[in-house]
Amino acid sequence: MRTQVAIIGGGPSGLLLSQLLNRAGIATVVLERRSRDYVLSRIRAGILETGTVDLLREAGAGARMDVEGIPHDGCLLADNGEMFRIDFDAACGRKVMVYGQTEVTQDLYDAQDAIGATIFNEATDVALHDVDSDAPHVTFRHGGADHRLDCDVIAGCDGFHGISRQSIPAALRQEFERIYPFGWLGILSRTPPVTDELIYARSDRGFALASLRNPMLSRYYVQVPLTDRVEDWSDEAFWTEFRARLPAEVAARLVTGPSIEKSIAPLRSFVSEPMRWGRLFLCGDAAHIVPPTGAKGLNLAVSDVHYLCEALIQRYRTGSEAGLDGYSARALARVWQAMRFSWSMTTMMHSFPEHGGFDRRMQQTELALLQRSEAARRLMAENYTGMPF
Amino acid sequence: MRTQVAIIGGGPSGLLLSQLLNRAGIATVVLERRSRDYVLSRIRAGILETGTVDLLREAGAGARMDVEGIPHDGCLLADNGEMFRIDFDAACGRKVMVYGQTEVTQDLYDAQDAIGATIFNEATDVALHDVDSDAPHVTFRHGGADHRLDCDVIAGCDGFHGISRQSIPAALRQEFERIYPFGWLGILSRTPPVTDELIYARSDRGFALASLRNPMLSRYYVQVPLTDRVEDWSDEAFWTEFRARLPAEVAARLVTGPSIEKSIAPLRSFVSEPMRWGRLFLCGDAAHIVPPTGAKGLNLAVSDVHYLCEALIQRYRTGSEAGLDGYSARALARVWQAMRFSWSMTTMMHSFPEHGGFDRRMQQTELALLQRSEAARRLMAENYTGMPF
Repeated sequence: MRTQVAIIGGGPSGLLLSQLLNRAGIATVVLERRSRDYVLSRIRAGILETGTVDLLREAGAGARMDVEGIPHDGCLLADNGEMFRIDFDAACGRKVMVYGQTEVTQDLYDAQDAIGATIFNEATDVALHDVDSDAPHVTFRHGGADHRLDCDVIAGCDGFHGISRQSIPAALRQEFERIYPFGWLGILSRTPPVTDELIYARSDRGFALASLRNPMLSRYYVQVPLTDRVEDWSDEAFWTEFRARLPAEVAARLVTGPSIEKSIAPLRSFVSEPMRWGRLFLCGDAAHIVPPTGAKGLNLAVSDVHYLCEALIQRYRTGSEAGLDGYSARALARVWQAMRFSWSMTTMMHSFPEHGGFDRRMQQTELALLQRSEAARRLMAENYTGMPF
Repeated sequence: MRTQVAIIGGGPSGLLLSQLLNRAGIATVVLERRSRDYVLSRIRAGILETGTVDLLREAGAGARMDVEGIPHDGCLLADNGEMFRIDFDAACGRKVMVYGQTEVTQDLYDAQDAIGATIFNEATDVALHDVDSDAPHVTFRHGGADHRLDCDVIAGCDGFHGISRQSIPAALRQEFERIYPFGWLGILSRTPPVTDELIYARSDRGFALASLRNPMLSRYYVQVPLTDRVEDWSDEAFWTEFRARLPAEVAARLVTGPSIEKSIAPLRSFVSEPMRWGRLFLCGDAAHIVPPTGAKGLNLAVSDVHYLCEALIQRYRTGSEAGLDGYSARALARVWQAMRFSWSMTTMMHSFPEHGGFDRRMQQTELALLQRSEAARRLMAENYTGMPF
């Protein structure tokens, strides 16, 4: 088998890259370890930046999003019960779109099917070969047989636990990491969301986030210690704690119900540099992880895909490798900005065991700054709605 | 002896308060523990915010500043040798004034002398009495005799080590503190400054600051471990280390010479709440300390003085205590903003022993954000030139 671009990973970044490249006349093969059903059952973030929305439309995968997605032109921040609003549109002229990653992935599979793209689900034993030569290839098992895929370029879109980053010799990688001393306990519930816009609530009991997927699907979170297990949290216990961390006027109108999904996710900031080795180019979680505060994970994968796609189109149209050579530095510059934003949002909003009174006052003062300074609101809104590609 | 406002401390905040109150027809007595010569020999910061400049003019103490002070409409930031400029004027329409605190204090003494204000230098054994009653008084020794000063209000302008804050029962005070794991080794040198504008330089060797007082007086600093003693640092050792932390093109034009002052100051963030107890009102370092990064110390004392002065004028003109009752909350709101700014500047620019690679990348990314985002520059410039009173 031969293709131009072998794409490792059939999550949203791999599918979007495949879709954009196909539309530009560049051949791809996508190898995904899991079944399509499994990929589509993963619950992930649901806030799309302006640039992500635009790129999904450009990929021909934006039609359902434009009908079902909910544009948000602001969010709410609360500090021990006192709540105020950041108007993104007023602050920076941009907004975000509430549309679940699961839906994005579904739309991308549909779009790929419509153009007859080649996707191997349940491709196992994927291995990369001769990555630092001009003739890389990928081997994998699928349908009980071994396969070899020759290609020009490999795109590593297989997430944090994937094999792409691990294929780069450790001596050539520099890793940066911050582990936060807490996780998010999240539930999905078929209840009307308590709010039209996201509420990020700092409280002395810990952080809480009220989010939503659609008018009858709520997505709520509370910060929990890393030692907590999801079995320890009954729905009742969740609702009690969640309510206690919300501003009173919000808590009063909270509608509760059974959870249809409940899980605890640790929070981590991680970057592996560089994002290119030989003919391998990493995109998204394969190269970097952000904590969910600020919803940058999917959006950052999309900006990587955008940069890599531009570089590949340049390479196939003009023969120039300049875009590919510049890919890692260009992508990382934006990655680090989003890292900073999600780290600062996380640090501002959560309770840290090691924090003393001064640190808590700094958190409150950062929130107060957002209330008093238009420049602070603009900076926050620019980052939240997404720095330009 | 009787006065309306007893002012403890004859540094810049006590003198400015006395000057402003006298001009408003309110009687004051200033008690200063040290001699005038001692007070005037202290080397302190030299950057005045717009609001400070305006208030010194309003106090009739701005004439020499307007001749000798150097307006700065920007500063330079460097990250491991790469330097860029923040244009305060372009970013927020304001600038700062370079004029040493020693000169400000001299001008305020001169202004006080000109209007015949009552200042007791070398007043010892100062003690506050009946502060939580309607009839407070102060006792002190001066010229070999014991004195009693009755008053309506006491202004505690006697700095971090003064007796004013200590007079508030510990149970009524809440203290917030951050000790930084380094100090600043500073020298004053009769050499032409290496730069027209301040250079804040982050480097892997530690922070350095190139500042100045006038065209033939340089003020330079390097971050040092808290365990260093000033005796360990020869002038030669200082110049070598300072040069190594500057961008190469700056280091190349550095003119060195003997130091005329050399000292190590620890860095600390400290706030004591509230800033009022009964008839006692704290101003400046008596209630809060900032690290020198961002030069907020004197400016913050001046904004306290401004708020207290307004409240006292209201009280004497209308009988209303509303301003005095609101003083602590109003002053603290601004204090915490300046605390946040000097903490964030300090955190962004210094080497911390506990920092790993991720933290260093966050510092670099914050500096990169200032280069790429106009909103970030505006927020920085607003804070640097001073939030409005």
